[in-house]
Amino acid sequence: MAETMRAAVFKDVRDIHIEEVPRPTCGPTDAVIRMTTTSICGTDSHIWRGEYPVAPGRVIGHEPSGVIHELGEAVQGYEVGERVIVGAITPCGACFYCQSGDPSQCAGYEDQWGSIGGWRLGNSMDGVQAEYFKVPYAQANLARVPEGLSDEDVLFVTDIATTGISAVETAEVKMGDAVAVFAQGPIGLCATAGARLRGAGLVIAVDSNPVRLDMARRMGADVVIDYTQEDPIAKIKALTEGRGADVCIEALGIQETFENCIKSVRPAGMVSSLGVYGDKVTIPLEPFVYGIGDIDIRTTLCPGGKRRLTALMSLVKAGRLDLKQLVTHRFTLDQIEEAYALFSNQEDGVVKVVVTP
Amino acid sequence: MAETMRAAVFKDVRDIHIEEVPRPTCGPTDAVIRMTTTSICGTDSHIWRGEYPVAPGRVIGHEPSGVIHELGEAVQGYEVGERVIVGAITPCGACFYCQSGDPSQCAGYEDQWGSIGGWRLGNSMDGVQAEYFKVPYAQANLARVPEGLSDEDVLFVTDIATTGISAVETAEVKMGDAVAVFAQGPIGLCATAGARLRGAGLVIAVDSNPVRLDMARRMGADVVIDYTQEDPIAKIKALTEGRGADVCIEALGIQETFENCIKSVRPAGMVSSLGVYGDKVTIPLEPFVYGIGDIDIRTTLCPGGKRRLTALMSLVKAGRLDLKQLVTHRFTLDQIEEAYALFSNQEDGVVKVVVTP
Amino acid sequence: MAETMRAAVFKDVRDIHIEEVPRPTCGPTDAVIRMTTTSICGTDSHIWRGEYPVAPGRVIGHEPSGVIHELGEAVQGYEVGERVIVGAITPCGACFYCQSGDPSQCAGYEDQWGSIGGWRLGNSMDGVQAEYFKVPYAQANLARVPEGLSDEDVLFVTDIATTGISAVETAEVKMGDAVAVFAQGPIGLCATAGARLRGAGLVIAVDSNPVRLDMARRMGADVVIDYTQEDPIAKIKALTEGRGADVCIEALGIQETFENCIKSVRPAGMVSSLGVYGDKVTIPLEPFVYGIGDIDIRTTLCPGGKRRLTALMSLVKAGRLDLKQLVTHRFTLDQIEEAYALFSNQEDGVVKVVVTP
Amino acid sequence: MAETMRAAVFKDVRDIHIEEVPRPTCGPTDAVIRMTTTSICGTDSHIWRGEYPVAPGRVIGHEPSGVIHELGEAVQGYEVGERVIVGAITPCGACFYCQSGDPSQCAGYEDQWGSIGGWRLGNSMDGVQAEYFKVPYAQANLARVPEGLSDEDVLFVTDIATTGISAVETAEVKMGDAVAVFAQGPIGLCATAGARLRGAGLVIAVDSNPVRLDMARRMGADVVIDYTQEDPIAKIKALTEGRGADVCIEALGIQETFENCIKSVRPAGMVSSLGVYGDKVTIPLEPFVYGIGDIDIRTTLCPGGKRRLTALMSLVKAGRLDLKQLVTHRFTLDQIEEAYALFSNQEDGVVKVVVTP
Repeated sequence: MAETMRAAVFKDVRDIHIEEVPRPTCGPTDAVIRMTTTSICGTDSHIWRGEYPVAPGRVIGHEPSGVIHELGEAVQGYEVGERVIVGAITPCGACFYCQSGDPSQCAGYEDQWGSIGGWRLGNSMDGVQAEYFKVPYAQANLARVPEGLSDEDVLFVTDIATTGISAVETAEVKMGDAVAVFAQGPIGLCATAGARLRGAGLVIAVDSNPVRLDMARRMGADVVIDYTQEDPIAKIKALTEGRGADVCIEALGIQETFENCIKSVRPAGMVSSLGVYGDKVTIPLEPFVYGIGDIDIRTTLCPGGKRRLTALMSLVKAGRLDLKQLVTHRFTLDQIEEAYALFSNQEDGVVKVVVTP
Repeated sequence: MAETMRAAVFKDVRDIHIEEVPRPTCGPTDAVIRMTTTSICGTDSHIWRGEYPVAPGRVIGHEPSGVIHELGEAVQGYEVGERVIVGAITPCGACFYCQSGDPSQCAGYEDQWGSIGGWRLGNSMDGVQAEYFKVPYAQANLARVPEGLSDEDVLFVTDIATTGISAVETAEVKMGDAVAVFAQGPIGLCATAGARLRGAGLVIAVDSNPVRLDMARRMGADVVIDYTQEDPIAKIKALTEGRGADVCIEALGIQETFENCIKSVRPAGMVSSLGVYGDKVTIPLEPFVYGIGDIDIRTTLCPGGKRRLTALMSLVKAGRLDLKQLVTHRFTLDQIEEAYALFSNQEDGVVKVVVTP
Repeated sequence: MAETMRAAVFKDVRDIHIEEVPRPTCGPTDAVIRMTTTSICGTDSHIWRGEYPVAPGRVIGHEPSGVIHELGEAVQGYEVGERVIVGAITPCGACFYCQSGDPSQCAGYEDQWGSIGGWRLGNSMDGVQAEYFKVPYAQANLARVPEGLSDEDVLFVTDIATTGISAVETAEVKMGDAVAVFAQGPIGLCATAGARLRGAGLVIAVDSNPVRLDMARRMGADVVIDYTQEDPIAKIKALTEGRGADVCIEALGIQETFENCIKSVRPAGMVSSLGVYGDKVTIPLEPFVYGIGDIDIRTTLCPGGKRRLTALMSLVKAGRLDLKQLVTHRFTLDQIEEAYALFSNQEDGVVKVVVTP
Repeated sequence: MAETMRAAVFKDVRDIHIEEVPRPTCGPTDAVIRMTTTSICGTDSHIWRGEYPVAPGRVIGHEPSGVIHELGEAVQGYEVGERVIVGAITPCGACFYCQSGDPSQCAGYEDQWGSIGGWRLGNSMDGVQAEYFKVPYAQANLARVPEGLSDEDVLFVTDIATTGISAVETAEVKMGDAVAVFAQGPIGLCATAGARLRGAGLVIAVDSNPVRLDMARRMGADVVIDYTQEDPIAKIKALTEGRGADVCIEALGIQETFENCIKSVRPAGMVSSLGVYGDKVTIPLEPFVYGIGDIDIRTTLCPGGKRRLTALMSLVKAGRLDLKQLVTHRFTLDQIEEAYALFSNQEDGVVKVVVTP
């Protein structure tokens, strides 16, 4: 009889709860990980609210740290018992997209590009809000946790830090650039930290929540703008001799922040878009009609792979990236329904929650 | 008394005609060129139709070849009598934008970013559809015509070839990429030629005009799609194992072609947009909502400067870029009203006209 | 009892001959291919001459086309009987180097960086000059041959074309650049073709062999220089207004060609080095001491992976890359000793040989 | 009668002293600056020692801050009395090299590429160790000092910071990379600071001078290696799981440091070379012969231009780049002989000196 485990299962809209389900089994290129800490992502909230469809019965979650429990026969160089993290996106390393340098869009060995390509955990296969989870393409995706770092030190590298910081790299931020980050949710905060880490000369954080603006300062913002108190476009232009920011990063996914980015960026600037839009967005006239041009709009998903995760963990290890400060609430797996409600409704000043078995 | 000359002057909507106006004078960093051949651009037609505003009285035109007539005292290394071309955009080389690698957005010595930055000729200053014209920042903008090349060989380097080919470079087309170019007007045809020149493995040209599709084949398209006969999105996907093109180039500037680009490009592909949009465009859901991502949308203006023009003339000289074939009609300056009507109304299978004094 | 096959086995210096050896077996991530056409590489000649060490008993060869004979259980999306090529380098897609975008330096699942990283076939494992060969990391390395293309059409994509053309991409050749390729052996000829394909405005090929200089012209050179007849440095400077080439490509691997590259490249130009040097090279004073600077020297190995091979096959399919013309001699596997002697001694105007079972 | 001024004049080897010379006059594209603070560069010491030739009678120096005294008639947007800095290299913005994105190699309006291209001040024209100095191509080279910053805050942006930090950008340091900087002289220290600013995960500084290693820590090094106490190559490999650093930066200009870079960098890594070599260097076997490859060796000069200077001053303004701490000694112009001796002989723990009128 198959062994079972507790897992957070999506049953229906606003119904994710703990069930007893079979433990995952391990194919030749897989690993099975015993989860030690996980979190809830904004995307999980989209699932919870029914805004992003997953199959009923699916185990949710894609931000895991844990311990190797079992290794497929083709996986080499790892041992059971090692501490690892695994990215939200699990590239195979072998498909057209992976070999094109686009691991987020991984189509897998089966060469079937699905919804958001390489995002499988808690989406097209069972996820990590469970006692155990299976990692596909384990060889490419098991990132060892450096000695001396706790789960909470590194957990957010798995998704929000990788995503937020990638926006900065996608935007090719240059030494001394002025960078404005619109929306200071977890991913926006990581983009703010990333802009500072990459050598921006002026990091501007925009939001309306004073707690998040405070956190933005701690993560690296030089200037914060509460858009309910002053016009961010005018303020950004005033801070940049009238030109606009060299790079604007969109971290929410609505027309208003997108449009503000386009309107706040300088001619020939970059808009790096992280937000997951629920509807079509319209590009305002400026960059397309006579008058401006040479604008780049780049959307970035979370590139996965152990190499990337390891690089970012080195910044944590060096004391230059403090992600632990994003944790505002802690739950056990059995309390996850409560955690979903709190996080999805943005109650009690929550930024990120952590969930342990 | 000031010397005069004949020039095409914008008077009012649909009223561009030849007038006698003062010859331009030459400041310390300028040159005055005696025009030998020029053309009419789609942008000039926008002016003619009143869709792009220029000051009444403005001499129009920004695609010139000619002979150096006078040189400012600070300009070095040139001689009166040399044959040159000058780009539509005349970067100063010294401003924030030029030093950022964005010459199209040049703000000039006066550091005043105006409408489309570095586009001055026939826009913010008098243009080249005249017997003589002044070149600002001449040191950076006089590109000598290589021996053995005629005006018609090189004329279109000044704008449409620079623009069309830059779209390919902006898109970072890689060896063997599948590239689809939407709309085969003069700029689209140059983008088609550019995709071929840059090593695309599959060049797909989309239009409905059979003459232009034929020309697209001659310029380098492997496959042409008449969008009135078959669905370009489906066809492009069929040609690329279902993925979509690696790069889509938009060369018209309307919602439909823009949207078709987004829908025809593969996940993590590039949309390079050349068109000058008359209205807001809407990004369809695909690249922004759950499901796709890592899309780059890059708009490209015509980067100017003598270095760029010289590089493209070397391709003409080597026999690898035949721009002369785009000339379908020839006029004298005195016939320019007729030329404007024919070109702007797209009569008689016109692709490009040339105008000589 | 294990099945056997005929294979070219390295026994000792100048002793590579056909032996009956066991057929390879197929692990979970491997494929076994029935070879249909292969070739001999300059590197194989180095082995034959004892200049590059491989273990006695090693089956040699790394340029194969063939038919899938057996597939490991973890390999998906392929079928026995499909025609494929496999690159000289077989990246795993999962290691530090592969995920860093450096597949040539692949350290494999076992994370052991060995001699030239990802070059395994005919080096650290048995190669392809045999009736059958095993492909490690098959998922990442089996590139289907497009319909309508013969083995000879695509065979050289596996190594020399990938290498030669990569030198051009590594050097970031820009539209209209002047590119000089030093030495027109098989890889140099492919670099010449690549420079043309990528949009160089002037392609200069240097060699002393008139047959190879003729072939260089056919592959895309605009100008050929016989260095025994004229000084290539002076000639290149004369062709580039005294500056030097924007890009110089070294395709031999000796001090002289390396030094000529450095001396022929313009200030702030690129030297892309393909040659496999048998000894230390010395950088002449110019780029390092007062006087010049901003020089890039980049060495390029053959990046593997099915994506790259497929991209280059699309150029063959489109008729823009004719590699078949490099075949000067044909042998059967049983005649391979004769082929080694002819190719290694550069007899009878040989450029490339092909070997069939 | 021409006005005169005091200036440090190169007379002969080890003979630079203050003389009364004519004040510079201002051509149409020049500015004349009243110097307020300057410094002595390692290159000046090379001149002093006779290792780099300049014409006797030349006013020396290329690291200036000052106040605009006079502006050429073609220079716009500046006013007499404004505080500015000017880079060691003064690109014209208009020549082949400037328009190629290589301002260090600027050939000027006259299109004459000379020794180290764009380095003119104190080399091919009179320099800045004087009461007044002329700035060629002033429009491109006058960088306003932001309010609130002193001369000492920004002075080293003019050369060593621009150079050292550019090495990091040239090397395309990525978030989390391991970067080793060989030699912690003024430029090496700036490279160390730059590696930290750009997001390296591990910054390793190598030198033997304990004072400089201490300063390296303050500028951003995570680990310092005294190469007289331990083998830097072995230590760097130990710190990077045996691979070597992703990027090695050479900041001295001798065979030993160059060779150590090549031997300490990982396969497919980058060597960014800043040192000015007095003799040929030899590339050790590793990156060129069978065994390793895909190495980039990039030499970087100091890119000039006001845009770059302004970007780096924004980092000073933001408190992220403290260059003032490099000042160990202060002199007046009349004491400059003493300053040359002290600095060139590396006495009294000198790192950088400043010189005021």
